[in-house]
Amino acid sequence: MPEDSHQMNRPNVACQLDDLRRRIRSNEFCGPTSGLAPGFVQCNLVVIPEIYASDFQRFCELNPRPCPLLAQSVPGDPTLPSLGATLDVRTDLPRYRHWHHGVVTHESRDIRDVWRSDLAAFALGCSFSFEEALINEGIPMRHIDLGVNVPMYRTTLPCRASGPFEGNMVVSMRPMTPANAIKAIQICSRYPSVHGAPIHFGNAAQLGIPNLDTPDFGDRVDVAPGETPVFWACGVTPQLALESAKLPLAFTHSPGCMLITDKLNSELAVTSP
Amino acid sequence: MPEDSHQMNRPNVACQLDDLRRRIRSNEFCGPTSGLAPGFVQCNLVVIPEIYASDFQRFCELNPRPCPLLAQSVPGDPTLPSLGATLDVRTDLPRYRHWHHGVVTHESRDIRDVWRSDLAAFALGCSFSFEEALINEGIPMRHIDLGVNVPMYRTTLPCRASGPFEGNMVVSMRPMTPANAIKAIQICSRYPSVHGAPIHFGNAAQLGIPNLDTPDFGDRVDVAPGETPVFWACGVTPQLALESAKLPLAFTHSPGCMLITDKLNSELAVTSP
Repeated sequence: MPEDSHQMNRPNVACQLDDLRRRIRSNEFCGPTSGLAPGFVQCNLVVIPEIYASDFQRFCELNPRPCPLLAQSVPGDPTLPSLGATLDVRTDLPRYRHWHHGVVTHESRDIRDVWRSDLAAFALGCSFSFEEALINEGIPMRHIDLGVNVPMYRTTLPCRASGPFEGNMVVSMRPMTPANAIKAIQICSRYPSVHGAPIHFGNAAQLGIPNLDTPDFGDRVDVAPGETPVFWACGVTPQLALESAKLPLAFTHSPGCMLITDKLNSELAVTSP
Repeated sequence: MPEDSHQMNRPNVACQLDDLRRRIRSNEFCGPTSGLAPGFVQCNLVVIPEIYASDFQRFCELNPRPCPLLAQSVPGDPTLPSLGATLDVRTDLPRYRHWHHGVVTHESRDIRDVWRSDLAAFALGCSFSFEEALINEGIPMRHIDLGVNVPMYRTTLPCRASGPFEGNMVVSMRPMTPANAIKAIQICSRYPSVHGAPIHFGNAAQLGIPNLDTPDFGDRVDVAPGETPVFWACGVTPQLALESAKLPLAFTHSPGCMLITDKLNSELAVTSP
């Protein structure tokens, strides 16, 4: 992790999208994007060699809850015009992970120098979109209130395999009252392209999670009396599939440092679940 | 309870609506209507003197989850044309409860002889409609599988009062897995006029229910390991409001013996919650 300048990049909610993107492109900003560019869709990114693209596309299709595919590039072309006219996946994320044979070897602020004509990019929906919808409806998010990352857990629920891509589903957990959980299910059902409705609530052991106090990723949060833990399929799932696929080369966003698009979260809502 | 001939009226799912209504009108059929006339909306009925009608209408408006008002008659007119061209609330239910000063004094197979020109009828949505939608989506209903009535409980959740009508909400309970509960929330959200989404799941004590094993109405059912109790606002709630209102006269359906309408359950679905 050669980069450790997160402290220098204080979130500025009022930051305009164009200005934010310019700062990300110029490597002036390399921190987490949570809370930035409110209203705009942020995405998980997976970049892999073209020869694995159809297997990965199929993996997303088979596992739409953890891997909701929003856009896919033409191999060699770093643009995603359906998500933004000027987007360039080589420069428009604050921070990238470099994967070699299933292991993250280092991070960087752009991937221009390592881009290849056989690379294909996949943009997947992210929980930031539905969290915004939930907060707008008055449902508090414990991890956001605490200023920490959402707790995430490996489950024993297998994804459906495609080629070299396989592995168990990762879930994120948000504690809420049953009444808010019911509202959250209603709201998230309108957003199938950003993980959709929760997949489980209540007893974590039913997902194969031994202990809620020790998340596999992100930070621990309290489940208060009268609350139930609510679990969503999580965008970290494809990174587990990358671990098991052991491709010679891959790139992803660094956790929390997402691709900010021109698309509005409100555009993702469908009228009925 | 002068009538005890339920055993003679075996449900016949294939029974045509017209034939069924003819048998109910002629008092040939006086049993529960659960499972009869599949696809058609069944209703809770409340008949009260006109002078209380606006207070009761407002009570329904203030408490739409337990009291979803589907139709209201003109005082003195026993028809409900929006629910069926030939419907007559005096004859078209298998069995009626007669209320005097907040107490059920007896039951009968029609209320023609006691009808008055100042009586107003209210038809309220019923859980049979959403149960049909849930079963059609593959979600089992424990009480239906067991051939018993759904368990119902008095809660400590107060309804909003209107004139003499007040009281706590009654809820019905259906045990299901968390995955099915999430589906049920999605499906029922499309049916706001038949109680809509559940109001609670999990810990019954949060609703003021001391013991799930002793329902206040209906029959006890098991909550299996891995299931959670899911609670819906219940159409018995207005009967508690009648108890506390102590009107000199009122009529309701007898539990489970509903008004079968010409309206289709599918017509009640809204496209978005």
